[in-house]
Amino acid sequence: MKALIYNGPGQKALEERPTPDIAAPTDAIVKIVKTTICGTDLHILKGDVPTCAPGRILGHEGVGVVEKIGAAVTAFNVGDRVIVSCISSCGKCDYCRRGMYSHCVRGGWILGNKIDGTQAEYVRIPFADTSLYHIPAGAEEDALVMLSDILPTGFECGVLNGKVEPGASVAIVGAGPIGLAALLTAQFYSPAQIIMIDFDDNRLQLSKRFGATDIINSRDGKAVETVMKMTGGRGVDTAIEAVGVPASFVTCEDIVAPGGVIANIGVHGVKTELHLERLWDRNIAITTRLVDTVSTPMLLKTVQSHKIDPMRLITHRFKLDQIIEAYETFGTAAQTKALKVLIEA
Amino acid sequence: MKALIYNGPGQKALEERPTPDIAAPTDAIVKIVKTTICGTDLHILKGDVPTCAPGRILGHEGVGVVEKIGAAVTAFNVGDRVIVSCISSCGKCDYCRRGMYSHCVRGGWILGNKIDGTQAEYVRIPFADTSLYHIPAGAEEDALVMLSDILPTGFECGVLNGKVEPGASVAIVGAGPIGLAALLTAQFYSPAQIIMIDFDDNRLQLSKRFGATDIINSRDGKAVETVMKMTGGRGVDTAIEAVGVPASFVTCEDIVAPGGVIANIGVHGVKTELHLERLWDRNIAITTRLVDTVSTPMLLKTVQSHKIDPMRLITHRFKLDQIIEAYETFGTAAQTKALKVLIEA
Amino acid sequence: MKALIYNGPGQKALEERPTPDIAAPTDAIVKIVKTTICGTDLHILKGDVPTCAPGRILGHEGVGVVEKIGAAVTAFNVGDRVIVSCISSCGKCDYCRRGMYSHCVRGGWILGNKIDGTQAEYVRIPFADTSLYHIPAGAEEDALVMLSDILPTGFECGVLNGKVEPGASVAIVGAGPIGLAALLTAQFYSPAQIIMIDFDDNRLQLSKRFGATDIINSRDGKAVETVMKMTGGRGVDTAIEAVGVPASFVTCEDIVAPGGVIANIGVHGVKTELHLERLWDRNIAITTRLVDTVSTPMLLKTVQSHKIDPMRLITHRFKLDQIIEAYETFGTAAQTKALKVLIEA
Amino acid sequence: MKALIYNGPGQKALEERPTPDIAAPTDAIVKIVKTTICGTDLHILKGDVPTCAPGRILGHEGVGVVEKIGAAVTAFNVGDRVIVSCISSCGKCDYCRRGMYSHCVRGGWILGNKIDGTQAEYVRIPFADTSLYHIPAGAEEDALVMLSDILPTGFECGVLNGKVEPGASVAIVGAGPIGLAALLTAQFYSPAQIIMIDFDDNRLQLSKRFGATDIINSRDGKAVETVMKMTGGRGVDTAIEAVGVPASFVTCEDIVAPGGVIANIGVHGVKTELHLERLWDRNIAITTRLVDTVSTPMLLKTVQSHKIDPMRLITHRFKLDQIIEAYETFGTAAQTKALKVLIEA
Repeated sequence: MKALIYNGPGQKALEERPTPDIAAPTDAIVKIVKTTICGTDLHILKGDVPTCAPGRILGHEGVGVVEKIGAAVTAFNVGDRVIVSCISSCGKCDYCRRGMYSHCVRGGWILGNKIDGTQAEYVRIPFADTSLYHIPAGAEEDALVMLSDILPTGFECGVLNGKVEPGASVAIVGAGPIGLAALLTAQFYSPAQIIMIDFDDNRLQLSKRFGATDIINSRDGKAVETVMKMTGGRGVDTAIEAVGVPASFVTCEDIVAPGGVIANIGVHGVKTELHLERLWDRNIAITTRLVDTVSTPMLLKTVQSHKIDPMRLITHRFKLDQIIEAYETFGTAAQTKALKVLIEA
Repeated sequence: MKALIYNGPGQKALEERPTPDIAAPTDAIVKIVKTTICGTDLHILKGDVPTCAPGRILGHEGVGVVEKIGAAVTAFNVGDRVIVSCISSCGKCDYCRRGMYSHCVRGGWILGNKIDGTQAEYVRIPFADTSLYHIPAGAEEDALVMLSDILPTGFECGVLNGKVEPGASVAIVGAGPIGLAALLTAQFYSPAQIIMIDFDDNRLQLSKRFGATDIINSRDGKAVETVMKMTGGRGVDTAIEAVGVPASFVTCEDIVAPGGVIANIGVHGVKTELHLERLWDRNIAITTRLVDTVSTPMLLKTVQSHKIDPMRLITHRFKLDQIIEAYETFGTAAQTKALKVLIEA
Repeated sequence: MKALIYNGPGQKALEERPTPDIAAPTDAIVKIVKTTICGTDLHILKGDVPTCAPGRILGHEGVGVVEKIGAAVTAFNVGDRVIVSCISSCGKCDYCRRGMYSHCVRGGWILGNKIDGTQAEYVRIPFADTSLYHIPAGAEEDALVMLSDILPTGFECGVLNGKVEPGASVAIVGAGPIGLAALLTAQFYSPAQIIMIDFDDNRLQLSKRFGATDIINSRDGKAVETVMKMTGGRGVDTAIEAVGVPASFVTCEDIVAPGGVIANIGVHGVKTELHLERLWDRNIAITTRLVDTVSTPMLLKTVQSHKIDPMRLITHRFKLDQIIEAYETFGTAAQTKALKVLIEA
Repeated sequence: MKALIYNGPGQKALEERPTPDIAAPTDAIVKIVKTTICGTDLHILKGDVPTCAPGRILGHEGVGVVEKIGAAVTAFNVGDRVIVSCISSCGKCDYCRRGMYSHCVRGGWILGNKIDGTQAEYVRIPFADTSLYHIPAGAEEDALVMLSDILPTGFECGVLNGKVEPGASVAIVGAGPIGLAALLTAQFYSPAQIIMIDFDDNRLQLSKRFGATDIINSRDGKAVETVMKMTGGRGVDTAIEAVGVPASFVTCEDIVAPGGVIANIGVHGVKTELHLERLWDRNIAITTRLVDTVSTPMLLKTVQSHKIDPMRLITHRFKLDQIIEAYETFGTAAQTKALKVLIEA
């Protein structure tokens, strides 16, 4: 089968690989129908993710059809259409039992990282019963690719951790795909104000169309000042960090209101400054989270009932044969205006 | 009347001052029976608290008797025995209505800071109806002085924010009075393990008697390693920072388990490092809080029903005439082994 | 001034009364601009509310202008435009401090019940600082009359207590004004399904326009069966009782899913049956609540940011002179299709 | 092997049966070391539990040793010492993923009900990985038999659902084993007052020794009146029903304070009266729950750290040969003063 291979920092190729087979009774083999590329895949390609060894098939998102099941799989049958979760959950360990699938002792984020992933014709899914989700009949499958990772990530790490509430004020620092996913799902809770902060005017304009009430181009260094003006000097109830660099986290520290929450989504490579000399008495919370995908069933219902339209995140479409081009498009988003690129396997 | 005056950095004196009078219809004048000294008073004396101007009467803790009430005071009568809360709450502003008395727009921590305090024979209490608490008949008043500040601080900022639970593991960094207050009140929730970390062997031994299951003298720089051993490599569910310096906060970052909470109590004068490169995917929360004293009624019930014995925190007793000596004793706690010093007015 | 007087069961009249004056330093006198009639006023007129004595001016809703303030009022000035809350909150008692204003020991629901109310040219508001809310400049005041009672009631008792969540299923039994208020505010949380159940086809059609996903006319006695079909045999996550009779409460018992909530809003005059023989092992919760109006600031923000349009609840308009006719219209809603009738004072 | 068989209403016998074997890859066979008898077993013997067919081996509690495992079992090995949970959880279905194991679509309470149970030398445990718990080395195994059912039931249905808090007031109606389990576990949260209500003076005296602050023999019909006196007319914050008859539930309705919770544990055979005419405006919650045993890991830690001593619940000991006598002793508890009878297999 064809598969996109990580061949070490800076090197990727579409190669031929053997089709995977069942390795444990809890496995399923899924024929991929649609997959996509995540910012994390770019991190791997930069060599930033040491757990991912050269030779690995990348990808941790996708929808597909169950091709084969292990002897202990009971929730899925061959032929079932499924969403692949980016997080594999054994369903048995302490973390899984507490709903923290991200820290599953045998799973977690392993797909396209520690084991082969979804940017291929077929993928082996461990713990299939607790790591796949049934696609309802008649559902728009393209939209559901967004349920593998980006929507639960924006929702769980940003919106749920950020305790977004009706009438509240929210600022999202970073209008990339993940920030936009937070923007879309924040609206489940009817906040009065969602301020989007980014450097890129295109993405800010897009944010407006996606439901932001206010946008700020932070290039002038006055984002904090502007947020304070927009919130009557109080700051925001929820500040969502969706970039992953110290500067944007410190912006969140500067704009969070007393009693508010800073919800970190960004993947950080270096430490940041925590201004406890200003924050120790502000009654705030800071949260971090690797997505657990525990909200996937809830999100699926919101998609099915048209409370959210994930199709808005899809800007480009490719065939698996064109995946190198798809990476190119996704990797130069400032030019291509790409958000999520859909790849048909 | 006699009062302890802050006369600028490094300077304090017991001086004669006019007895305060009602200034607003919501005021009460309280004759102080017992007061005490807080670590924050020492901060003021170092010149670290710019909101406190020279000439101020210090002190924000105490029990007393209502001497006079303003026209709008309805919950207290002359002669009522009362606990003075360190936080003044107007009861009307948005923050007060949300239970965040610490951020009351007209109150908050003003006593012995922005207005004259309790280390005196009399004190004027603004918003008396919502800033004083009735002392039940027959209560041990000395114990209740601990309800002005130290117990709610340890409880709200450390234990409640830290989400201490039955069977859980807790580490408290700092075994000073505030860390010990967290230790005492953490036991309301029956955690399985409470690890106390400090440099001072005397305080660590005391911690054992106060209910710590384990103690670590961190002088050898191996506290993190030791906590990890004690928790089977997981870290603790709740890490409480009760010192207020970067090193102890970073220790908390190093020992918090996935899914855990770092609850900051310490008053920080400088920024600290936040190791988001390690923490971004650990599903943790960090909380800060200036005590709201919203738990005072609950704590009063726990004292009255003997679930906690605050008397254990009182190590020394003085008369108001001896307050300079009391400060000396409290300020050299490593030598005097002082925790809280009680001052009879 | 003119005022609508309850003269004993079945008897009401628009009479001339003395304009009220300040009676306590925490009082304000409000000149009523707009008021409305509540279902509870009809209960009083039937003689069902023994706390309301003949001679009382009715009404507990309205917006107006502050005419006079007592010496201890600090949050409002003469000339301020205000929303009158149906619940008076002293802000000081244990219940008020816990956010349970409904059980305020000196307030609670007293307006138009134990003291004179808002269906008059002027009203005296006790504890004005904590029982009135500022109207933002430029706000649509008619809409804000709905914030006095009906919207917080539907929201707090139905939606918040009912724990409505994104993607969830909700059934509301009763499509009268209060059920519709629950319907409107439930949408803050983006449930997937809101099933409205009533006898009245007009109100059911209205429900559809207000956002219900499904409607059931329960006249055929098959509502339970139909809900079960609509929810795949599971029942609903949240069942909201908005009528106040045993039959509709028992319907809620029959349709609540395992793990779900029955949130009662209805005012009940008699006991009902609780089928614990079926429910003891269903892991459900049943909640009751007299509105606390603690959500008024949040609701005000949702109105100001157009997350909800309360104007949709207003069907008729009258002058205070026509209030008897307004009562007639409101009291025969099945014929007049009245929801809320707005009365200009 | 020997096993206690339910042979239809009123009929039980110790009979010889074939040793069970693995039937599904997720099964384990456990050699029972200790088991016990539950009030529910008596219900079955009365014929009250239609899901339990004649011929069934009774029992859903016990500790043992893993004798054999299915091919898909990964968390347990032969020879492991284990606690058997009364609730079987597949770990995969929606309910299991939400922590509602009681409603597991393939499990739930099936042991000694729909499939053969633990009052035998061996038992087959379905979904072993998610329905057994490891016994720590050196643990007191007799105590851990109480973790199969009675402690999680008292804790989850009574204490957790009842939101017991430090300083709060609690009443428990019913001082049988399950009420006493609630009494023991309520103390994890340091309530100020725990009032125990029962007809049986022996059990009430025992309650005192187990930590009740007050006891009431309700035979005189004045329990409600007495609770009201004991709580200053307010009622209790948490009322726990631990009997399962209408009268005791209505007592809970009568004694719950505004803002309080009625947490039902009792197994009810008939409907009860819900006095909504008094409760609709009291801001209370009523909860029901079949134990999920989701708290077993937490409870195990509290036992291991000596926060609770479950041995206090064990009053009698028998060999499996004497199980008919053990039933006799347990079934006449008023005479024998039996709480839990331990049976050695």
